[in-house]
Amino acid sequence: MMKLNGNFQNLQQSYLFVTISQKVDEYGKAHPQNQIIKMGIGDVTQPLAPAVIEAMHRAADEMSCKETFRGYSPDSDGYPFLREAIAGYYKGFGVDLDASEVFVGDGAKSDVGNIVDLFDVDNTVLVPDPVYPVYVDTNLISGREILYLDANEDNGFLPLPEKDVHADIIYLCSPNNPTGAVYDREQLQAWVDYALENRAVLLFDAAYESFITGEGLPHSIFEIPGAERCAIEFCSFSKTAGFTGMRCGYTVIRKELQFEGVQVSKLWERRQGCKFNGVSYITQRAAEAVFSPQGRRQVMETIAYYQNNARVMAKALEEMGIWFTGGANSPYLWMKCPDGMDSWEYFDYLLNEAEIVGTPGAGFGKNGEGYFRLTAFGDAQKTVEAMERMKKLKK
Amino acid sequence: MMKLNGNFQNLQQSYLFVTISQKVDEYGKAHPQNQIIKMGIGDVTQPLAPAVIEAMHRAADEMSCKETFRGYSPDSDGYPFLREAIAGYYKGFGVDLDASEVFVGDGAKSDVGNIVDLFDVDNTVLVPDPVYPVYVDTNLISGREILYLDANEDNGFLPLPEKDVHADIIYLCSPNNPTGAVYDREQLQAWVDYALENRAVLLFDAAYESFITGEGLPHSIFEIPGAERCAIEFCSFSKTAGFTGMRCGYTVIRKELQFEGVQVSKLWERRQGCKFNGVSYITQRAAEAVFSPQGRRQVMETIAYYQNNARVMAKALEEMGIWFTGGANSPYLWMKCPDGMDSWEYFDYLLNEAEIVGTPGAGFGKNGEGYFRLTAFGDAQKTVEAMERMKKLKK
Repeated sequence: MMKLNGNFQNLQQSYLFVTISQKVDEYGKAHPQNQIIKMGIGDVTQPLAPAVIEAMHRAADEMSCKETFRGYSPDSDGYPFLREAIAGYYKGFGVDLDASEVFVGDGAKSDVGNIVDLFDVDNTVLVPDPVYPVYVDTNLISGREILYLDANEDNGFLPLPEKDVHADIIYLCSPNNPTGAVYDREQLQAWVDYALENRAVLLFDAAYESFITGEGLPHSIFEIPGAERCAIEFCSFSKTAGFTGMRCGYTVIRKELQFEGVQVSKLWERRQGCKFNGVSYITQRAAEAVFSPQGRRQVMETIAYYQNNARVMAKALEEMGIWFTGGANSPYLWMKCPDGMDSWEYFDYLLNEAEIVGTPGAGFGKNGEGYFRLTAFGDAQKTVEAMERMKKLKK
Repeated sequence: MMKLNGNFQNLQQSYLFVTISQKVDEYGKAHPQNQIIKMGIGDVTQPLAPAVIEAMHRAADEMSCKETFRGYSPDSDGYPFLREAIAGYYKGFGVDLDASEVFVGDGAKSDVGNIVDLFDVDNTVLVPDPVYPVYVDTNLISGREILYLDANEDNGFLPLPEKDVHADIIYLCSPNNPTGAVYDREQLQAWVDYALENRAVLLFDAAYESFITGEGLPHSIFEIPGAERCAIEFCSFSKTAGFTGMRCGYTVIRKELQFEGVQVSKLWERRQGCKFNGVSYITQRAAEAVFSPQGRRQVMETIAYYQNNARVMAKALEEMGIWFTGGANSPYLWMKCPDGMDSWEYFDYLLNEAEIVGTPGAGFGKNGEGYFRLTAFGDAQKTVEAMERMKKLKK
């Protein structure tokens, strides 16, 4: 008889966003005149850049004509025009990539989820808590042991390696989802040194790098010496250019990353060649347009819009004397729930008293209890209004 | 130390299309005036249907405006508009699906590759030989034992279950890639009965179903009673509507498919929710347009164009007295190499003497040796020309 993968039983049901949406629906029904402001889900709200839209129209027209029609892409890892554009973008961080070290995929979530296919089941995984649930779930599905690292107020939600903890696969996300906290160069160097010493692989999620403005803060793990020998970096156009509905990301694996004499990039190439057929041509042309001078200017304007929301929110929390991380260099603000409330208590309180929806920190792990995530991806005017409401509540 | 997944060592290097391309390049350099006709790779050549192009332009414009912009799709399994359109399409086969039984993905290759995440490593896999390499490779990567089933001239490359062979996971592809052979209702019923008896799961690849014209031939495994309790069906817009560069497919899992009391569709939902973020909105709107009356008419015209190529090829092979399968109900023709040549001998012979490129059958498994695959996805005039050249060669 066919046996199912029993590891699925070890997954927790992902009730977080379902429960939020149920509570919001119920509130809405009981209060038909409500003016709820949603600051919960990490989705963008601003339209795509005009340069991106133009590129899509051009690409669609190419597909309408036999002479310019594109079928399967030459390989599953992306068209050379896009791999080269991404490698060019890394030059801005002082990182000199070969285009063949860039692998275009349909989003950071897929690549972060699928990368574990390359690793033996018997490796030990280390993830900070609170954490983006995909890191945990993808490893539970394949049956790996998971260790958690305490991220908390004491370490500013930026935990550093612990000498007596041994792990083979380490996940880091900076700027962090959900906490918005950002590692500096020295902290990342500590992680790279630890990974090299333990011969571990460091899976670095840089999906929010374009929100970094602080001087000297690394955008890429490959700015750190030695990272080429231990790290894999995941990034995405979702938050950089509003591509959440477009589906495009990229993974960077340097040639130097080898275990047991095997180049990890070759295994990824083989994995993707077997189980993936590349990203939509139209999406790849759209992503290319993000790197044109015009496209770059336009996406940076949208990021500035969200950054301004984050500043408004950070200022309001400061005025209210609420402890938080993020807001600067990140679209997320991770605040301590006031008056000792737990995450869900505060969720209910904020929904009922101020008609604001956020995300209970407890949904991201046990260390998230007592914290709350707000996102800066909303409308500017509504963001101001939400902060006014929170301040009134505090009085 | 981090250990890699050692199963990658069990994969054969996929030299097939690389070697073909090298040989063609070499020939081209040695004969700059050549007029090579390519009938090797299974990619389409005709542009997308006008209705599809229009849908993409409309969707791109939606993305340019805040009021109509779309971010993350409501869930990773596709927008309701597309799931419902696909369920509606199945009504034409007499199959009554609920839209929630349809899972939209980025292509049959991804879904066929990733579905094995749901199954225990200790299951035994049965694949016919010759075979689409993904079935084998994805199971080798996860470390499953694979049994091969002889497809050959005696059974018309349509092997039936063998009572003394036990397997838990069975792959079938009909119309078949590479052989073009198509199972009839009775043969598929034998497979469904065998799967139910063995409590096996039947993974049915229907990527070429839209090429079926023969009366009474099933388009979907779910036309067979009992299949809802043992089968998963994979399909794609790649060959139906020329979407090889667009990336969209779908997987159908009925609610009745349960093992150990667990609904398999729930596991797939969970797997995709964790490791996938849905298909591009623009691609989903493009796929929806395939089912509009206008879109349907247009894609059927293109299929008719390829079917006509297949007829021209089949007629030529018949005239030459060459044994083959496919051609009817399939874009592939699987011919026996003339004069006892092996697959690569015939490849070289055809390239050098007639400037035609096909695919050596040996690349699809040991039973493919001595056979050769030709595709009907080329230009109509060139297809006629290629057949004229083959006939001249035969004289």
